[in-house]
Amino acid sequence: MAYQSIPSDESIACSKNDDGVILLEFTGAHEQNPFSRARMRELAALMRDIDADDRVRSVVMYGGPGRSFGVGGDFNEVSLFTGGDEVSDWVDDITDLYTSIASISKPVVAAIDGYAIGVGLQIALCCDYRVGSERARLVMPELRVGIACNFGGFMLRYTVGTTVMQRMLYTCEEWPADRALADGLLHETQPTDKTLERALELARRIARYTPEAVQGTRARVNAPFVEGLERVRTEAKESHRRAFAAGEAQVRMKRIIGQG
Amino acid sequence: MAYQSIPSDESIACSKNDDGVILLEFTGAHEQNPFSRARMRELAALMRDIDADDRVRSVVMYGGPGRSFGVGGDFNEVSLFTGGDEVSDWVDDITDLYTSIASISKPVVAAIDGYAIGVGLQIALCCDYRVGSERARLVMPELRVGIACNFGGFMLRYTVGTTVMQRMLYTCEEWPADRALADGLLHETQPTDKTLERALELARRIARYTPEAVQGTRARVNAPFVEGLERVRTEAKESHRRAFAAGEAQVRMKRIIGQG
Amino acid sequence: MAYQSIPSDESIACSKNDDGVILLEFTGAHEQNPFSRARMRELAALMRDIDADDRVRSVVMYGGPGRSFGVGGDFNEVSLFTGGDEVSDWVDDITDLYTSIASISKPVVAAIDGYAIGVGLQIALCCDYRVGSERARLVMPELRVGIACNFGGFMLRYTVGTTVMQRMLYTCEEWPADRALADGLLHETQPTDKTLERALELARRIARYTPEAVQGTRARVNAPFVEGLERVRTEAKESHRRAFAAGEAQVRMKRIIGQG
Repeated sequence: MAYQSIPSDESIACSKNDDGVILLEFTGAHEQNPFSRARMRELAALMRDIDADDRVRSVVMYGGPGRSFGVGGDFNEVSLFTGGDEVSDWVDDITDLYTSIASISKPVVAAIDGYAIGVGLQIALCCDYRVGSERARLVMPELRVGIACNFGGFMLRYTVGTTVMQRMLYTCEEWPADRALADGLLHETQPTDKTLERALELARRIARYTPEAVQGTRARVNAPFVEGLERVRTEAKESHRRAFAAGEAQVRMKRIIGQG
Repeated sequence: MAYQSIPSDESIACSKNDDGVILLEFTGAHEQNPFSRARMRELAALMRDIDADDRVRSVVMYGGPGRSFGVGGDFNEVSLFTGGDEVSDWVDDITDLYTSIASISKPVVAAIDGYAIGVGLQIALCCDYRVGSERARLVMPELRVGIACNFGGFMLRYTVGTTVMQRMLYTCEEWPADRALADGLLHETQPTDKTLERALELARRIARYTPEAVQGTRARVNAPFVEGLERVRTEAKESHRRAFAAGEAQVRMKRIIGQG
Repeated sequence: MAYQSIPSDESIACSKNDDGVILLEFTGAHEQNPFSRARMRELAALMRDIDADDRVRSVVMYGGPGRSFGVGGDFNEVSLFTGGDEVSDWVDDITDLYTSIASISKPVVAAIDGYAIGVGLQIALCCDYRVGSERARLVMPELRVGIACNFGGFMLRYTVGTTVMQRMLYTCEEWPADRALADGLLHETQPTDKTLERALELARRIARYTPEAVQGTRARVNAPFVEGLERVRTEAKESHRRAFAAGEAQVRMKRIIGQG
């Protein structure tokens, strides 16, 4: 790839070249890409830097070769919650991440291979265009895990409508790529080895539009989405504190990561 | 069926067992299940009882074997309206019914056989998941009958989007099960003899999620829907008083019930 | 056609007969039907007249035989903009046109042949029902042309949802009739020689419903759309003044009309 890699000791690698496209690739951590609080803050900070950098015209977000796009919060971290202020702080990190992706003036294209689950799927829903590989799998499993699905409910309804939102939330099933495309969860699908290239191609096309046109559009059309996220911030703190205080969510999470 | 029937001299039978699922089955009245004001109040009261009962985790609503899910307001009652306060009282009953279904903290699965027309379809649209039998038929015929379609317009736009709403409202056509599934009016379709069982199966799955997760989600994701219904309450009183004062709606309704 | 033509020295011909349907046919100008400021004002004024005329029950809007439905603003006019008050005045004309179509109490059916691009597509999106010919082509090319897409972004999200909106805005591709039907941009498609007749047939059906029912419905279900347009009015002035001040949009427009 022609993109110049910027050295990073963090869990997200940035590479850009002179076409105005920046590629964010999730690295380190587990190959399924769970999102710890540290990584959520890192990604949010990157989005703010990108917004301020005039040379960047569009963004591609990618889980890395052979890796999942993102599989949700880090259960090792979350399963220790007891329903106090640590829950509210975590919800603030999540909300800040989502609003930072959705509110910048530059479009973000997601290249999704493997799983996009929970927080991972929600990050993808903050992007403007989702190119999914044939083996992409999308899941919103919150109710099965034992926590409320306030962000997922809002984002899915906003993006793909009430009926698909209800199907995903209440069944907790896995959406393979073709069903995700039919339901508007993906904007297009590609063979696995073409997914990133297609995302970069679209990002380059967007980078060739004038910045006045793109930046006068993206933040505006996303404004109701960002306003909605801020409303969910408050609701989610309440719901999640209650769920973690009840204790059953942690039991279910520990079972999933093999510590239950 | 293993569900224990609760004796009722009313038009709705409740049965529950120890899996946390309550089954509401419309009985008595005509086999097409028109909704008189008395029945609307009965169903609204039941929803409030269900919300207060901690043992209930999810609800199934069903028109009864070989019966329609619901065919709208009771024309014998409505065709006597003259455009005064009786219209506003009727709109209050309707709105209270819709908001009571949509605002409780427990998910409601509709098992739809036969017709779901007007008020009947609107009751179904207040539910979280609609399993339709192969012979289900959905219609929003208000304009053809001669009354405004304020609730139907709002609910359809909220649930399946503007285009499908406009198709249903302005054509007044009948949506067979496969078209209803493709348009998101039904979440899934089943052979007629499997429809109720599938609705119960999904309700049992929901009942196994933690109540904190489900109840922290359902009321939240439905909040904008309930707020919208309250706005329609006011509009619908005005529209319906004007339509019934004009008189043509009653003529069309009497013609439909064979008294015209 | 049985419709009686009303003489007009303007760019829109009106014909009505005694079935309550009025047909607006775009005439004069270029066969692709660009929308100059004068024509936008003429159409807005016609909509207000129609709203006040009790004999009119529904409207059909048509680009004329062998002509496009509408291809956007008049680049000969717009490419002279410099980013001052002339841009705000133009946005006012556009907004007044859109709100006048969307807010009247009578349904509007669009018969779409050829292209519906930019402003032309946005006019179509203010209608209640779009019958497209097999050769209809829909495009929202603003970003490619170099201007923000505030109205298009709002209208597409409102009408066909977020995912289709994002696909159209960020790819700037052409939607052929079958894709437009699948995505809900068209309510139905017809062979080219049946398109107008089918639009008139549906308008006549609507005209046979009672005016109380239709007029108590149309303005109500459209109210959130009209409110949204008013919010976009302000945003669009800001975005468009910035884009035209930057100058690149005019260069791209002149290139398109062969003066670049």
